[in-house]
Amino acid sequence: MSLEVVFSSFIAALDAAAVGVFATTGALVASRKQMDIFGFALLGTVTGVGGGTVRDVLLGRLPVFWVEKPAYVAIALVVSAVVFFTAHIPESRYRLLLWLDAVGLSLVCVIGAGIGLDAGKGAFIAIVMGVITAVFGGIIRDVLGGESPVILRREIYVIPALIGAMLFVAATGAGVDYPTAAAAGFASCFTVRGLALFYGWSLPGYRPRPGRETREVAPEPAGGESPGAPSDEATARAKGGAET
Amino acid sequence: MSLEVVFSSFIAALDAAAVGVFATTGALVASRKQMDIFGFALLGTVTGVGGGTVRDVLLGRLPVFWVEKPAYVAIALVVSAVVFFTAHIPESRYRLLLWLDAVGLSLVCVIGAGIGLDAGKGAFIAIVMGVITAVFGGIIRDVLGGESPVILRREIYVIPALIGAMLFVAATGAGVDYPTAAAAGFASCFTVRGLALFYGWSLPGYRPRPGRETREVAPEPAGGESPGAPSDEATARAKGGAET
Amino acid sequence: MSLEVVFSSFIAALDAAAVGVFATTGALVASRKQMDIFGFALLGTVTGVGGGTVRDVLLGRLPVFWVEKPAYVAIALVVSAVVFFTAHIPESRYRLLLWLDAVGLSLVCVIGAGIGLDAGKGAFIAIVMGVITAVFGGIIRDVLGGESPVILRREIYVIPALIGAMLFVAATGAGVDYPTAAAAGFASCFTVRGLALFYGWSLPGYRPRPGRETREVAPEPAGGESPGAPSDEATARAKGGAET
Repeated sequence: MSLEVVFSSFIAALDAAAVGVFATTGALVASRKQMDIFGFALLGTVTGVGGGTVRDVLLGRLPVFWVEKPAYVAIALVVSAVVFFTAHIPESRYRLLLWLDAVGLSLVCVIGAGIGLDAGKGAFIAIVMGVITAVFGGIIRDVLGGESPVILRREIYVIPALIGAMLFVAATGAGVDYPTAAAAGFASCFTVRGLALFYGWSLPGYRPRPGRETREVAPEPAGGESPGAPSDEATARAKGGAET
Repeated sequence: MSLEVVFSSFIAALDAAAVGVFATTGALVASRKQMDIFGFALLGTVTGVGGGTVRDVLLGRLPVFWVEKPAYVAIALVVSAVVFFTAHIPESRYRLLLWLDAVGLSLVCVIGAGIGLDAGKGAFIAIVMGVITAVFGGIIRDVLGGESPVILRREIYVIPALIGAMLFVAATGAGVDYPTAAAAGFASCFTVRGLALFYGWSLPGYRPRPGRETREVAPEPAGGESPGAPSDEATARAKGGAET
Repeated sequence: MSLEVVFSSFIAALDAAAVGVFATTGALVASRKQMDIFGFALLGTVTGVGGGTVRDVLLGRLPVFWVEKPAYVAIALVVSAVVFFTAHIPESRYRLLLWLDAVGLSLVCVIGAGIGLDAGKGAFIAIVMGVITAVFGGIIRDVLGGESPVILRREIYVIPALIGAMLFVAATGAGVDYPTAAAAGFASCFTVRGLALFYGWSLPGYRPRPGRETREVAPEPAGGESPGAPSDEATARAKGGAET
């Protein structure tokens, strides 16, 4: 097999793994929201193929990858169904989601960067593509699943993807073979993200900031730190106070 | 007229109807949020052409259909304006939205599947395309309109679209003529969705799940069932309690 | 230099300015949410290039503009970093965001309309493209940043973009040279939006509407006027009352 064929198979396998992992995180969000099996299938599939879909659209690789290779969708559907029938074991589900998401993040930052390189637009675009694709999987999941978007929570989330994509692109640029470069990219991303998860670097701190106009067009609560849509909180708190 | 021309006209007419119906649901959401007429026009149009736009982008049918045939946008704009000037009759507006959405869902699952077939990627992709396009009309509307996304509410929503698309694809595969197959797909989707609406199968049940870590990165309220962004509710409730 | 080259450079310069301005608004939203520097970079960049990206995808101009010219992404990244290191000066940050957003809106409605004209799909599509691209920059920022989408707040926001795009398209259609037409479009949009901001035309009024079913699939609070996701407010208020 030529190197190109090997790399293609390698990317395809990684892509399949990433689709499965992200589909799992989508399905786990569906389980948190107690959706039905079709909600699982939809959110799992959209999450599973979302990052790669954005990547393909931005690069003009159309039809998107899963239209050409429907097996990816089948993987996402099967994974979602499996999660549906097993995820009612409640404990540590959320923890699992975070770690699986870390695996997906690490895979996708490398895959996105690799396909970015493949597009021949240079190292910078390759890295940007790696980061954006890696992060958009989770963003689409969170927006459609009604969760606070992952970029809103002050976690160490973007930087691992950036490090993974940069290392992968730098390594391939330095002549390292693709599998090794990809492994290095994956490992660096997963390590940073894993440390952040393990040591709880992701926990947001509270920092009140006085002296802002709070009731303008889009009101801002006194503590902008809380996850979710703080304006509702502010309104609700005000209302709650008024009605007490 | 050749069969192909007939089918093209048929799809175009269905597409126009679907655009109008979804634009109406978008405009009704705008009315619920008491937007101005430009908000109506924007939300109505985006909703009206949103599903087909996603479909076209994923398949690489670019520019998207309404750039080629601006009449679709004009339909959406006119419909939105009509809703703006008539929707202040309050009663049963939300009920109407649900039923119109059911009509749109039924049209779009067939149209999406038909164009998916047209793309020559096989029956599976055609069905997936039908489901995803059908559901994304409502999802875009809900995300932009600040509503709880339709897939979050545990309704019988995805399955009717799936049934409609499958029946349509199976029928055309079995040699049934396009209009009949489309009618069967529409009818089956609308029947299932209509029954779900009529008998209230859509109402979500409450199922508390104890023993989860609730205040991690993305907190989860005690009852994950409530529509909207539950984290805000949890925060607001906590605050409300604290301030009482 | 031929007129075409001049226009190309002109559009490129405007595009760069718009990217920078929208990136600033994205980064300011990131500062409101106290994200880290990578959150700033991501939200700033996505916001900066979001409108143009949607425009390019819809028109099939792929890869999107910033893949071809990565300098746009670099601009957005630099701007986001600058905001990160300077935006902790709290006062009037939100005001600044609104006015910068107005500048971005005015630039982008003209740029979008210009590229719409360029696509040769006629004046109507050019105007629609101008409006949609102008408004989607802010919409993407708000959705990803967890803010209430700008079209939800009953502001004078869509109409300035519409006026700017229409004036620009009409002027070029009437034979006015591109720079003049673009300046007229920009000025008209900015004037209308600026007046709306200055005189507070954007403030939403409260209009209760009795007699609606409020606790159906997607509940609606008694006062649908409040920004953000009203269902949460309603729920929170109810809970707050119950716990008192």
